[in-house]
Amino acid sequence: MSATAARITAVDTYDIRFPTSRELDGSDAMNPDPDYSAAYLVLRTSEGPHEGHGFTFTIGRGNDVQVAAVDALREHVVGRSVAELCADPGALYHALVGDSQLRWLGPEKGVMHMAIGAVVNAVWDLAAKRAGKPVWQFLADADPAWLVDQIDFRYIADALTPAEALELLTKGRQGAPERAAELLRRGYPAYTTSPGWLGYSDEKLTRLAQEAVADGFTQIKLKVGADLADDIRRCRAAREAVGPDIRMAVDANQRWNVDEAIAWTKALDAFDPYWIEEPTSPDDILGHAAIRRGVHPVRVATGEHVQNRIVFKQLLQAGAIDVLQLDAARVAGVNENLAILLLAAKFGIPVCPHAGGVGLCELVQHLSMFDYVALSGTTRDRVIEFVDHLHEHFLEPVVIDRGHYRAPTAPGFTAAMKQDSIDTYTYPHGAFWTAENTEARA
Amino acid sequence: MSATAARITAVDTYDIRFPTSRELDGSDAMNPDPDYSAAYLVLRTSEGPHEGHGFTFTIGRGNDVQVAAVDALREHVVGRSVAELCADPGALYHALVGDSQLRWLGPEKGVMHMAIGAVVNAVWDLAAKRAGKPVWQFLADADPAWLVDQIDFRYIADALTPAEALELLTKGRQGAPERAAELLRRGYPAYTTSPGWLGYSDEKLTRLAQEAVADGFTQIKLKVGADLADDIRRCRAAREAVGPDIRMAVDANQRWNVDEAIAWTKALDAFDPYWIEEPTSPDDILGHAAIRRGVHPVRVATGEHVQNRIVFKQLLQAGAIDVLQLDAARVAGVNENLAILLLAAKFGIPVCPHAGGVGLCELVQHLSMFDYVALSGTTRDRVIEFVDHLHEHFLEPVVIDRGHYRAPTAPGFTAAMKQDSIDTYTYPHGAFWTAENTEARA
Repeated sequence: MSATAARITAVDTYDIRFPTSRELDGSDAMNPDPDYSAAYLVLRTSEGPHEGHGFTFTIGRGNDVQVAAVDALREHVVGRSVAELCADPGALYHALVGDSQLRWLGPEKGVMHMAIGAVVNAVWDLAAKRAGKPVWQFLADADPAWLVDQIDFRYIADALTPAEALELLTKGRQGAPERAAELLRRGYPAYTTSPGWLGYSDEKLTRLAQEAVADGFTQIKLKVGADLADDIRRCRAAREAVGPDIRMAVDANQRWNVDEAIAWTKALDAFDPYWIEEPTSPDDILGHAAIRRGVHPVRVATGEHVQNRIVFKQLLQAGAIDVLQLDAARVAGVNENLAILLLAAKFGIPVCPHAGGVGLCELVQHLSMFDYVALSGTTRDRVIEFVDHLHEHFLEPVVIDRGHYRAPTAPGFTAAMKQDSIDTYTYPHGAFWTAENTEARA
Repeated sequence: MSATAARITAVDTYDIRFPTSRELDGSDAMNPDPDYSAAYLVLRTSEGPHEGHGFTFTIGRGNDVQVAAVDALREHVVGRSVAELCADPGALYHALVGDSQLRWLGPEKGVMHMAIGAVVNAVWDLAAKRAGKPVWQFLADADPAWLVDQIDFRYIADALTPAEALELLTKGRQGAPERAAELLRRGYPAYTTSPGWLGYSDEKLTRLAQEAVADGFTQIKLKVGADLADDIRRCRAAREAVGPDIRMAVDANQRWNVDEAIAWTKALDAFDPYWIEEPTSPDDILGHAAIRRGVHPVRVATGEHVQNRIVFKQLLQAGAIDVLQLDAARVAGVNENLAILLLAAKFGIPVCPHAGGVGLCELVQHLSMFDYVALSGTTRDRVIEFVDHLHEHFLEPVVIDRGHYRAPTAPGFTAAMKQDSIDTYTYPHGAFWTAENTEARA
């Protein structure tokens, strides 16, 4: 290797927090007052101009712990060859997930695992930028055998073998150019959660639900689970606002025990909920299976807090879910999400990603678009969540057009934050927070 | 409440690391070079002389992240009334587990959850000290209804109701004084992992196995999973050293996929393994169930990395384990471990706790001793792991006598580290590590 080959020179980290709790944006039955935050990192290189951006989404307190976890990974990354890293992000994934001392802090879950996801996603951002392609296209154009090599089959080989993965990806390539063209023309279907936050008044809910339909969305989502009488009233209002043909999902954000989940969902039956999301703990595979049997024909959806491919594997094996809601920043990045997309394809379960928060829409659209173009080959019953918060802080914010995500064409993960936003909202020393503190002291 | 009532005045945290990797103590198929460490905390109070000590065990890198997680909990603890905290540790458990912003970083798993466990255990240490009792006795003497109130039934009520818990605890109290006396006389059965580390030579393994039997242990454990030919040779040597009547458990430390676990365990059949421990990912409930069906009559054991009561619940519901290996510092402290002990009692599965590391023996003995005295009422097929490392750093180290843990009689959790050890091994500025750095620079 040449002595002048470009290297990763630094992993810069930022604790960025937005004061969203003041408007009750994002309020639900378990999260009454989130401050949408990002443990953000930039991979600097000696080659310029490209940098790799990645982050973990959090909802406020503890974002500093998440930043500390990214810092703990720095020694694995700094000094690596940029070309080698981008040619095989899986090698870094394995080094990070396989660090035996750090592994003790999970394994493969929680703070440490999300930090790995942020770093791994930053490498994919960098790799796609160097290739001059958006991540969805970078993945769709990749050799299926190379993609298989990017996947960690440990603990999932009983449900998905490398040979099966290769077959799915090879089959997925048939007709990919036509679907890519279609994607660029029409975009990818979205649904919106914006009307349904628990803290909103019925009037605001009704107005936003009607606006959603007028804007071309065919599915909305309501938060439920705090009070049954309220939920019945809100579901009725929403159903009246959107009419019978719009899909209306409900989301309990893990509020219930198994029996409670079944009874509560049944009580909302009259309003034809499309799916019940996160009815209970994301760790409760058998619980979700029991709930699914109990609430049929309402679909069961979960995934935004599912910690890794091993739990997704079991949710599929147990017949516990109808809809798989992967999250771009909860698991160990693109590599683990490739495994999850392939498991979903193998079991024939549609993927409807979790998004919202800050930057999650920007990130996750690429995974669904890759899935459509070069894996499942369909958008049938598939929608990406859309929440209209905080996009103004991104250099290439998502664009929603008649209820569809427009396919990004800029290179990379298109989820880099504006430097000015980073500076202003860095906690606790950014301009926004220091002004806050000055006011508080005044 | 009186203005002069005692309060928690500080949560002091320490990043303590021991250089165990140099001796290959603790080496196994997944952890080749652990540096046993503790993210350690002390609750200071305004009442003196009592302090509450707690910690998370880690194996080196990332111990700083774990300390940062404890620091993030400080605001929940400082300023609380000592009397109220000790009268109801469950209130703090709920405040910590229920912090909606911090919950996003789990929920209830990994770095954040272990930090909660360390703080909650420190409160139990303080409460037991103030009551003048060791934790096992403090629990055994507690009113069953109060104990039920200390338990979080969210997500486990489908397997264990508060009424069932009360019944088990009430029944467990029958004969408790006699069992407490018996415990103080005989101690609690232990098994030893000291002979079986993967990095040890066959000679060392044989010698230590023979010493274990001579010392009165009736069960030993060997690490396996790196190389099958080595494992066969080592199991043969160990079985020859201990004879046919000593139980010999084997431990793969999550090394295998499901099929591999079954085949490998079968290949060791000739040496009569008592249990196969951590055959695969601790997250794989269905995988453990498949392995258990495949390796019968060898027992399946897991738990040291099981993240919370919800996963234990499912391991029991799925019939996936024969032996439940709770860990005192992996889950959210005594409160969550009470739930786990009760689940095990309900399902009739013996609890054989994970210990070793640094301080885990000191902590976990209390949970097994409580279980014997006032819950399951038996030590049949129950043993606490014992590893003879690093006990010299504790003020009240465990005492092993003829293969039994002697019941501690000092008040509290009896797991407080000597101040001199804390000072010397604090990373990176303690005397041991600064001397290291000086040598490295020389």
